[in-house]
Amino acid sequence: MARVAMIVIDMLNPYRHQDAERLGGSVASIVKELGGLIARAHERDDVDLIYVNDNYGDFAATREDLVARALAGDRPDLVEPVLPPRDCPFLPKVRHSAFYGTSLEYLLRAQGVESVLLTGQVTEQCVLYSALDAYIRQFAIMVPPDCVAAIHPDLGRAALRMMERNMSARVVPAARCLPPAARSSAGRRR
Amino acid sequence: MARVAMIVIDMLNPYRHQDAERLGGSVASIVKELGGLIARAHERDDVDLIYVNDNYGDFAATREDLVARALAGDRPDLVEPVLPPRDCPFLPKVRHSAFYGTSLEYLLRAQGVESVLLTGQVTEQCVLYSALDAYIRQFAIMVPPDCVAAIHPDLGRAALRMMERNMSARVVPAARCLPPAARSSAGRRR
Amino acid sequence: MARVAMIVIDMLNPYRHQDAERLGGSVASIVKELGGLIARAHERDDVDLIYVNDNYGDFAATREDLVARALAGDRPDLVEPVLPPRDCPFLPKVRHSAFYGTSLEYLLRAQGVESVLLTGQVTEQCVLYSALDAYIRQFAIMVPPDCVAAIHPDLGRAALRMMERNMSARVVPAARCLPPAARSSAGRRR
Amino acid sequence: MARVAMIVIDMLNPYRHQDAERLGGSVASIVKELGGLIARAHERDDVDLIYVNDNYGDFAATREDLVARALAGDRPDLVEPVLPPRDCPFLPKVRHSAFYGTSLEYLLRAQGVESVLLTGQVTEQCVLYSALDAYIRQFAIMVPPDCVAAIHPDLGRAALRMMERNMSARVVPAARCLPPAARSSAGRRR
Repeated sequence: MARVAMIVIDMLNPYRHQDAERLGGSVASIVKELGGLIARAHERDDVDLIYVNDNYGDFAATREDLVARALAGDRPDLVEPVLPPRDCPFLPKVRHSAFYGTSLEYLLRAQGVESVLLTGQVTEQCVLYSALDAYIRQFAIMVPPDCVAAIHPDLGRAALRMMERNMSARVVPAARCLPPAARSSAGRRR
Repeated sequence: MARVAMIVIDMLNPYRHQDAERLGGSVASIVKELGGLIARAHERDDVDLIYVNDNYGDFAATREDLVARALAGDRPDLVEPVLPPRDCPFLPKVRHSAFYGTSLEYLLRAQGVESVLLTGQVTEQCVLYSALDAYIRQFAIMVPPDCVAAIHPDLGRAALRMMERNMSARVVPAARCLPPAARSSAGRRR
Repeated sequence: MARVAMIVIDMLNPYRHQDAERLGGSVASIVKELGGLIARAHERDDVDLIYVNDNYGDFAATREDLVARALAGDRPDLVEPVLPPRDCPFLPKVRHSAFYGTSLEYLLRAQGVESVLLTGQVTEQCVLYSALDAYIRQFAIMVPPDCVAAIHPDLGRAALRMMERNMSARVVPAARCLPPAARSSAGRRR
Repeated sequence: MARVAMIVIDMLNPYRHQDAERLGGSVASIVKELGGLIARAHERDDVDLIYVNDNYGDFAATREDLVARALAGDRPDLVEPVLPPRDCPFLPKVRHSAFYGTSLEYLLRAQGVESVLLTGQVTEQCVLYSALDAYIRQFAIMVPPDCVAAIHPDLGRAALRMMERNMSARVVPAARCLPPAARSSAGRRR
């Protein structure tokens, strides 16, 4: 089985932007499932868990700043369950795709990753754009519909269909995203 | 007014791939309008006309090869009206976005282009992906719905909405895409 | 005068790698001058000061981690005088060029920067490689020889000649790198 | 043995630029050896032969144009022995690195190439810059000194040392660049 990386996109969000309320409703419906998938991925030796998060235009912001600002925002309840574990790669991004202006492609190749599991927000924006960039770089794509949040449900559904039909993405629920663990691994890689 | 580049995407197509028939129907409905817009753009001193076309996996193919193969395909009637003028930049591409693995970004910046007018096929695939890449690189986007062709009309419409809503694209008919010519320019730039 | 960005490359270094001793000697000879130039750039409204630093393969490392590890290394005396001001953009990099896998190009264009002032280490490696990437992206280049450190002095000199001759870089001492300040600016931009 | 790609850089040159005379002298000394290596690479099933050549700012130029202009230049004797075989990938480039604004990285990965053999001109410019870009993308590098041409011999030698020392390049004569053929292959791959 090809090595998998789970990518968590833009979940550190103060939820104070336009459409934040609408988005918050969608995130509320996935955050528990996503938190569970993050925990399972983090335990696995054969899965890389990688956070990629917008810096919201502040290039001096540290990882701690981004965490603190998200927790101090309007929806800490949507942030706490999905905080990045301390030992996880954390890549700041500056535009919509998780690949643009980041080291994500380099990291995936250095780790021997062939398949990416895309989660987070927003389905019809950063998730879709990241899927596109993964696809043209020839990574296989999985997207669990119960771990991505949309602003506009119809566009979110269209985005999922585009990924499935035109990017050969596997659109499967979180419960079926990770391959069965080969063994009960006591510790984590690296 | 910012300098505009009209990008013609993937119109050299032998129409022998999966979904070619369905796509051909959509292309048939735009090819006359697109041919007219290409002619107007080509006449203008203040508009760059740039073709970006897939090499269909043949990295040894020349521009002449791609033209000849499209004309020898199943729908030469959809190719002839939109052939690239001899003096137009012609960039081979290898994946779905017109920016990936091409010199398009460099060319646009070297020409001082700030706004791209995206045309061609397929609305919900290469046109959408090229719009995304233009958007994150901060180019303004225009898309004339009467000059882009879809395979799946519903996904094509969703793609146009995504461009309009999430990439600030101006979705306007071909007749209103180019600014009024400042003057009757006898010759062409360069 | 075009907007300038001063780039400080890889100065957060624990100096425990191969050639660290040799490099340390060269850094010792520039660190005071570089510290002064950083201070002057930081004061200026019309100059962007940007740190780009290797993450040394640790994608979970925060900015604070990188600072702490450098200070806990073998040459804190070479780190303290050039620590990044808290409000400075700080971009982690993963390979040798400051542009590869980082948001540097995006940030420079977003700020309207046309000219980069390259400083730090190693002259014949990351500084040269960053100069190359700046050059092909059409940024003007300045390199103060008294603010870059080499491992091999002869290769460092060859690198400076390559930048000067083949990348049109201005190789001028730190004292002459920044244009005269237009006015005594009390505060800083942003 | 990892799959190898031989890259021929900028050998289609009309030799009418600044320094062309000086460069021509150096090219004259390598062109026979380079022609031989191209022929051997072209015969091999396990080696990809790829031309990457500047378009000299003409984005409408076809492959045939670039060949014809080089042959009509001041040194057709330096062009004829190294013309691209008809079935070879041919990538136009627009700046100094063979990777920037081209599909080279994509092509190498799609072919499973892990090692690049860099040849052509100019050692201390496009060859060095392409080596840098190959290196940060984690391709192994070989450079035969008898198949690269310099404008300034001392900078050419410094460039070779940089590649050897800082990019782990194997600097070995053309005669030892290609691994022994596994078998007498009657035909060519693809």
